[in-house]
Amino acid sequence: MKEHKKLPSAVIKRMPRYYRYLTTLQQMGISRISSRDLGNRMGVTASQVRHDFFSFGASGLQGYGYDVDLLRQEIRDIFGLDDLFSVIIIGAGNLGHALAKYSGFEKNGYKIAAIFDVKPEIIGERINDIEIIHLDKLQEYVQDNHVDIAALTVPEIRVLEVAKLVTDNGIKALWNFSPIELLASDDIVVENIQMIDSLMVLGYNLRTAEAKLNPN
Amino acid sequence: MKEHKKLPSAVIKRMPRYYRYLTTLQQMGISRISSRDLGNRMGVTASQVRHDFFSFGASGLQGYGYDVDLLRQEIRDIFGLDDLFSVIIIGAGNLGHALAKYSGFEKNGYKIAAIFDVKPEIIGERINDIEIIHLDKLQEYVQDNHVDIAALTVPEIRVLEVAKLVTDNGIKALWNFSPIELLASDDIVVENIQMIDSLMVLGYNLRTAEAKLNPN
Repeated sequence: MKEHKKLPSAVIKRMPRYYRYLTTLQQMGISRISSRDLGNRMGVTASQVRHDFFSFGASGLQGYGYDVDLLRQEIRDIFGLDDLFSVIIIGAGNLGHALAKYSGFEKNGYKIAAIFDVKPEIIGERINDIEIIHLDKLQEYVQDNHVDIAALTVPEIRVLEVAKLVTDNGIKALWNFSPIELLASDDIVVENIQMIDSLMVLGYNLRTAEAKLNPN
Repeated sequence: MKEHKKLPSAVIKRMPRYYRYLTTLQQMGISRISSRDLGNRMGVTASQVRHDFFSFGASGLQGYGYDVDLLRQEIRDIFGLDDLFSVIIIGAGNLGHALAKYSGFEKNGYKIAAIFDVKPEIIGERINDIEIIHLDKLQEYVQDNHVDIAALTVPEIRVLEVAKLVTDNGIKALWNFSPIELLASDDIVVENIQMIDSLMVLGYNLRTAEAKLNPN
């Protein structure tokens, strides 16, 4: 990952979406795009696009726009996607299976290296060629293998103890899928996938749209 | 759902997190809280808390703070959580199974009513007492049952045709779990769960934290 100044977290959160759109443009063979065209496709303003790219030092040229390949690679550099992060999954239930089978990780720079669980009957099985290892072996595993990120797909009542186990073993990044929100600390970074939050926003927008169509 | 003026989308996106924290406070028997205390717990400023609540008409009292029950109920009203939204899941793979088994929906106002798939061998099975119905029966189902939201957990290559099928059958809200981003239209609302986006932000924050600890 190249050295960059720390970007504002709001810009960082928007960047993956730009990256996805730039990838699609690249796949379509489009080599340059204006902030207006990109904004139109994404449903944001051209000035938002220019502001966000300017914040990490990428400027389009007047009358030319942005170079799609260059801009996409710049985002890959900022996010360290060419480094291939090593991810382990804790919890081989349905969600753990779904993550292990998800095809989008490796091409985006994330390698699922192992899955941990505690059910004796599934230890040694493979999901998408990734081995299920007993959680008792976690310490041994992290001594022998570099791990960047732990995805936590364990039952809600287990998530606090598992988060402690994982961080006690030196893993610094938690990708938490349980409804319990884990908080970051000085040396642990956390992303919480709160599925209910997204559903609440969807329901709100649905009711608002219905109210507009049926005003009485 | 009570009539409210349309709130700014940034406020709407932050509201579910307040709702979760207020629910936890209620469960702990805490009946009132200051904007400062709530902000501290959540890692946001007191002025952000006051601004967000003020935007939907909730004001704390000087020296008293906010009434936890009242504020939580106000958010329930805004999001229509007492209406019980009806949700169907399209795609009974691992992710569909994980959603069907997720315990947090009903208590938050969302009822999973049915699961649709196309594999003959699983039609009629039940997941968490929710029946798997053949996708060919979708039209019949929506004629007999009110459906608010369709969760799309189908393979990526199927998501566009399934989104069309679902909206052609009058469903106005799509909760999309595929990597393909679906765009909202005038009468269709969409929430895209982009798991890679969250993973990218996590990886960025990890590298930034590591760079701070090892500056050379």
